[in-house]
Amino acid sequence: MKLVCTKEALNHAVQTVQKAVSSKNTLPILTGIYLSAYDGKLDLQATDYEIGISCKIDANIEEAGTVVVSGRYFQELVRKLPGETVEISSNREDRTIKITSNFSQFNLLSLPSEEFPVLKQMVSENSLLVKDNILKDLIKKTVFACATDESRPIFTGGLLEADAQGIRMIATNTHRLALKRDNLENLNNSLKIITPSKILTELARVLVSEIPVDVRISWQKNQVSFAFDDIYIISRLIEGQFPDYNRVIPASFATTVQINTDQFLDAVERVSLVAKDGEYNVVKFQFKADTVIITSNNPDVGMAYETVDSHCQGNEIEIAFNVKYVTDILKNVGSEKIIFSLNTPLSPASIKPEDDDNYTYIITPVRTN
Amino acid sequence: MKLVCTKEALNHAVQTVQKAVSSKNTLPILTGIYLSAYDGKLDLQATDYEIGISCKIDANIEEAGTVVVSGRYFQELVRKLPGETVEISSNREDRTIKITSNFSQFNLLSLPSEEFPVLKQMVSENSLLVKDNILKDLIKKTVFACATDESRPIFTGGLLEADAQGIRMIATNTHRLALKRDNLENLNNSLKIITPSKILTELARVLVSEIPVDVRISWQKNQVSFAFDDIYIISRLIEGQFPDYNRVIPASFATTVQINTDQFLDAVERVSLVAKDGEYNVVKFQFKADTVIITSNNPDVGMAYETVDSHCQGNEIEIAFNVKYVTDILKNVGSEKIIFSLNTPLSPASIKPEDDDNYTYIITPVRTN
Repeated sequence: MKLVCTKEALNHAVQTVQKAVSSKNTLPILTGIYLSAYDGKLDLQATDYEIGISCKIDANIEEAGTVVVSGRYFQELVRKLPGETVEISSNREDRTIKITSNFSQFNLLSLPSEEFPVLKQMVSENSLLVKDNILKDLIKKTVFACATDESRPIFTGGLLEADAQGIRMIATNTHRLALKRDNLENLNNSLKIITPSKILTELARVLVSEIPVDVRISWQKNQVSFAFDDIYIISRLIEGQFPDYNRVIPASFATTVQINTDQFLDAVERVSLVAKDGEYNVVKFQFKADTVIITSNNPDVGMAYETVDSHCQGNEIEIAFNVKYVTDILKNVGSEKIIFSLNTPLSPASIKPEDDDNYTYIITPVRTN
Repeated sequence: MKLVCTKEALNHAVQTVQKAVSSKNTLPILTGIYLSAYDGKLDLQATDYEIGISCKIDANIEEAGTVVVSGRYFQELVRKLPGETVEISSNREDRTIKITSNFSQFNLLSLPSEEFPVLKQMVSENSLLVKDNILKDLIKKTVFACATDESRPIFTGGLLEADAQGIRMIATNTHRLALKRDNLENLNNSLKIITPSKILTELARVLVSEIPVDVRISWQKNQVSFAFDDIYIISRLIEGQFPDYNRVIPASFATTVQINTDQFLDAVERVSLVAKDGEYNVVKFQFKADTVIITSNNPDVGMAYETVDSHCQGNEIEIAFNVKYVTDILKNVGSEKIIFSLNTPLSPASIKPEDDDNYTYIITPVRTN
């Protein structure tokens, strides 16, 4: 193998596939990045069998070929290379890869490329197209609500649904639920899959195009793939039945409160300073006619008392929540004002942006004495 | 106690004393910040018995008094308070301290202030004045060379000397030594003390005046204090005999090499990527007439080869160093070009800025096969 490419493109590709490089040493070949040079392209791949990422860049190929190089060293080295272009060549005899840029020359040991599990492009009749900015928004507004506890795997992923009503992502840990909807044109196949949250987070990280591009989502029994630009990501799916989330969303509310998001978030975060050593991080909210009183009482630390202006319609109510469930949505809501809707101190409440009916967040209150 | 002060001043004082708050729970009172209000001033103090820091700010005192509050919560809370002013009052009956700012009100539990070991201003005839920017430079250019290994305590501190020749700071871990000199006017007492490196680092962090101010250094048998602006820092000294560092500095060199600092640092750091998994982080340097060749060979990773332009006078030489000892000085030297001076592959070498004869750094080479 012998090729020349720009440092910028190579660095972009290495950083893109890097998150799929295995950090465990159980299968050494998975700690490597696979390089394949052919027909004016260099294809970089990494996989830990949970997720596989491929990124293709333009390259001047003098000699086609494949090689696997240590992900850790290659990534650090490419980032620090001095020149604008990089020459890469492999030497079959001593199993090394030579990387040259300006006056820098590195010979890194390579791994046996025939052992690398090269990603197979999924052949599936099930696929749909969605704009990357829409997909990124669906992920970012829901994925934080997934469970981190692995005891019920179904809740560690985000449910992606597409049908005649549009495209939706839903995430829940059973104590809170986030749902984001968007429109979808040209739907051929309806979709219902659960993708692990860490793969969704990784996907959102690499969806950074300046001009919206189409992402092709393809799926089959236990796998999903996302293809856009020169990037291809393939992931296992979480199997099982996602509960009917529509049952969790209250049909109506006795109280609706409009509050400035930033003021509310700042006040809740200050109160949480006192609450956070407690077992449940519990903060109390008293919704009055034109103010919300936020309090916490931790016998080991002290008491906090904050008030924030609000506009309340309906019954006044006193209720308690796990503070993290409240701050998470306030950080992600992306709207100047929120609507906090409630029924009783023991029934689920809703927080949503004032200006977006396609985004819903439900939280279960905490019973206090 | 009851007072009003600005949030900005209070936050500055809390962040200044914060590093002296003990993170260990063995003596709970030392996890607190001591507040003392009197005569238009609020004095904040913290100590872990290694270091004590006091910072005084202007305050509107309605009622004098003292209180001790949890360092951890107070620091986080003050940073997040919403208003421009803060009102603090203590309630002796329920042992709480009330902190109010805009619509925020916090009642934090307090600790018994009579148990706090209030800092005593050192009364000593031994003292001298030095400008804060000079003291900061002495520290920053040497303290990184201290030993981190506690087995020989003397090398975990920086030696500060002042006499008719000026003021100097010296630090060494026996494998490398940094020496920085400056001028000193109006010297009354000669000084020779060893201060723990972490206290020097902390001192450098709080020396941030925009206009140079005088720092009064006072010392007695086993303590040193630094007083400037409204800040007072007191620390234990390390006792023992610092070796004669002048013997370590070679009188002359057979080879002197001028190199661009940034180019050299970048190349050495890239080579260190390959070296750093090795036991000693060893990198080889070949000083030729107009180039330095920097190489490393790690059987588990690969080989690195870099060249940097240089201007060499004297004998060509091949030598090896612990790469961290080379990159540390290149990061701190603060000069466009360095002078690397050498004798033989097994004798100490020197790296210094091209334009400052008052800064010297000596490194011992590593024997290689």
